[in-house]
Amino acid sequence: MNIEIKNAYALVDGHIDRHDLYIEKDIITGVDRKPDGFTGEKTIDGQDRLVIPGLINAHTHSYMAMLRNIADDMPFMDWLTKGVYPVEDRMTGEDAYWGAMLAIAEMIRCGTTTFNDMQMHIHNTTRAVKESGMRAVISRGLVGEKYDRDDVRIKEALEEISDGEGTNGRLTFMLGPHAPYSAGFDYLRGVADIAKERGLGIHIHLAESQTEIDNLKKEQGLTAIEYADKAGCFEVPCIAAHCVKITKSDMELMAKKNVSVVTNPASNMKLGNGFAPVPEMMDAGINVCLGTDGAASNNTLNMFHEMSLLTLIHKGTHNTPVCINANEALAMATVNGAKALGLEKLGEIKEGYKADLAILDINTPSMVPKNNLLSSLVYSANGSEVDTTIVDGEILMEGRELKTIDLEKIIYEVNARMERLNP
Amino acid sequence: MNIEIKNAYALVDGHIDRHDLYIEKDIITGVDRKPDGFTGEKTIDGQDRLVIPGLINAHTHSYMAMLRNIADDMPFMDWLTKGVYPVEDRMTGEDAYWGAMLAIAEMIRCGTTTFNDMQMHIHNTTRAVKESGMRAVISRGLVGEKYDRDDVRIKEALEEISDGEGTNGRLTFMLGPHAPYSAGFDYLRGVADIAKERGLGIHIHLAESQTEIDNLKKEQGLTAIEYADKAGCFEVPCIAAHCVKITKSDMELMAKKNVSVVTNPASNMKLGNGFAPVPEMMDAGINVCLGTDGAASNNTLNMFHEMSLLTLIHKGTHNTPVCINANEALAMATVNGAKALGLEKLGEIKEGYKADLAILDINTPSMVPKNNLLSSLVYSANGSEVDTTIVDGEILMEGRELKTIDLEKIIYEVNARMERLNP
Repeated sequence: MNIEIKNAYALVDGHIDRHDLYIEKDIITGVDRKPDGFTGEKTIDGQDRLVIPGLINAHTHSYMAMLRNIADDMPFMDWLTKGVYPVEDRMTGEDAYWGAMLAIAEMIRCGTTTFNDMQMHIHNTTRAVKESGMRAVISRGLVGEKYDRDDVRIKEALEEISDGEGTNGRLTFMLGPHAPYSAGFDYLRGVADIAKERGLGIHIHLAESQTEIDNLKKEQGLTAIEYADKAGCFEVPCIAAHCVKITKSDMELMAKKNVSVVTNPASNMKLGNGFAPVPEMMDAGINVCLGTDGAASNNTLNMFHEMSLLTLIHKGTHNTPVCINANEALAMATVNGAKALGLEKLGEIKEGYKADLAILDINTPSMVPKNNLLSSLVYSANGSEVDTTIVDGEILMEGRELKTIDLEKIIYEVNARMERLNP
Repeated sequence: MNIEIKNAYALVDGHIDRHDLYIEKDIITGVDRKPDGFTGEKTIDGQDRLVIPGLINAHTHSYMAMLRNIADDMPFMDWLTKGVYPVEDRMTGEDAYWGAMLAIAEMIRCGTTTFNDMQMHIHNTTRAVKESGMRAVISRGLVGEKYDRDDVRIKEALEEISDGEGTNGRLTFMLGPHAPYSAGFDYLRGVADIAKERGLGIHIHLAESQTEIDNLKKEQGLTAIEYADKAGCFEVPCIAAHCVKITKSDMELMAKKNVSVVTNPASNMKLGNGFAPVPEMMDAGINVCLGTDGAASNNTLNMFHEMSLLTLIHKGTHNTPVCINANEALAMATVNGAKALGLEKLGEIKEGYKADLAILDINTPSMVPKNNLLSSLVYSANGSEVDTTIVDGEILMEGRELKTIDLEKIIYEVNARMERLNP
């Protein structure tokens, strides 16, 4: 749709000022300059609006929205074996579809326009992505000991990629070897080889907990980062989630190999893993982006909450108010994520960029007064200020009403299904 | 108003189950038991609702809502001298009134029903409290070197207390000596004497930063807690904000003297002061409650955000998921605050208790599915789920619409005033 957003506050080049924005089909074709021959089909009055690039949730597991709040305040192994696993085991593909729809609904309502998802039920997830209109990068979680090209999970992933690629410009794929402790060395090397062959990126969990590091050191004599590098994961574009327990030399290695790191502050705290060395990774020149992780370990998929956590905790651990500023947090939640996911011309408001936008109502108490709207995005907003969410020029929410999905039905289905899954 | 809330989920005795609640005037007179002769004037269908005790923000500075986002990502002294002070100096009482109104609007919308406020413009704040219908405990911030009973601030505080006490059951007062670094020892002792004489509690900032501790140690040879104790602050009910930099012996002293501590996670991180030893204070038997601090150092007055921060950061710093659970966080945000503020029969849903309630819409993605509604309050909710807020049996918000105050006018006034105050 061709949309004109008139005289709105907008985040352009790291500053918020009044701008006119022009969207033609899926592209921002004008910033303060009406494109030749532009004919608007819709005009949005920007008087009380703040337009930002749609947020990019660079690491989540959408099906886990079904498991939200299922296991809290308990040791990690109980969380996993008593909380998560029993329900996951009972989940069907259809359950995963409804979980993904719930996750997508929550994300759209908080201004997220792209998510990077590691999945067990890849086909049902791509279905939810296509129906909702969201932008997503999907990987089928891959676990195994010995590499075998006929491994059922790898086949499933590759089939889905072949089917899905090109069907929808908003849907792309990566390969998702789960983690060093769940993907044996040969398996991981095999997956990396396929990624190289097929021109795919890798989405992996690395260095999440001290236990992972201790075991790898004992068994392989390597850090998690060295292990992934040795297996060839860094020879393709790689996005590594967590990276909480890493050394200076790990950081140098990742910077050298252009590995992007997704930090997940809530998840790392909730599961007792602590705080990733984000300022140190930034200093090392690593592209750091931001994710919520799944709803079983967060327990919300709200990137505004995550930006606030990100900036506050590092000011806290580094004992200074001058550590990760609002602009840096916004970059991690937008353009850095696009870069990590190989999505070009995404994550900024610029001519020629994808029309993925979140539009906030600034007439809400948390955004008043307008002392510094950039700060308000990171330090005051809670996500409910988002009025309109646009992906690829398509309006997915307006006036907080979801346009492409039926929220009432999703809530009914998810609640009903959980009565069976978690009786 | 007499209100019946039918078949709602409600947090009673630390558990969430379906309940019928009966309110007569300002009191909860029935939980699952219709009081004799009850005649309801209003019925709320609780099918999709979760009722919790209204949240108690145990430390804030409401006028500072005007200064939201005014100074972020800068060293503490710049924050204070370049950001906060110049605007504070220009603020009139009328500005403070509109700031308080904005703060109250934000709090009501996030389910807060009581706040504990330290103020410069006490008269204008009590006016906002009375007009809005909020419950509040107000102290005039007191700073001075030498004690003088005719000190202008002390006189102002005592006059306001004399005028205000009893005029409105929702409004009570404390004395608010600001902090050890701003109230000299004799001054502090003088204020403590008045508090004792008048049967008032004391609201004070203690041990917020390492600089405060280092200077006190050098000048007085005391910790901040020892200093306040020596000055007599603990001989009356005392609520101490922050307590970030305290020793084990400080904790024992506070526990022995029944001092309540308000922890302010966002503010302590934002200003680079780190993390208060909350689990350790709980172990020491201290009554710990929760506050947002003012909007210049947070930058939101959202107690849901604060509960989430509270639980996550301590799991992070203590490297365990089992540290401050959801029930403990909710207690700190409700009944512990009531206890700290000397407000009896407040902060729980119980027969005979004050009808101060927040009612959440559980048909929002962040609250779905209903795996654990208690967890959802602390780990998933962002505050925007609050549909209805009730204080003293009076509905201050319903369907997210504010009933006692004009939000549009507040936003207009605050934005206009800031153009003058922060040109």
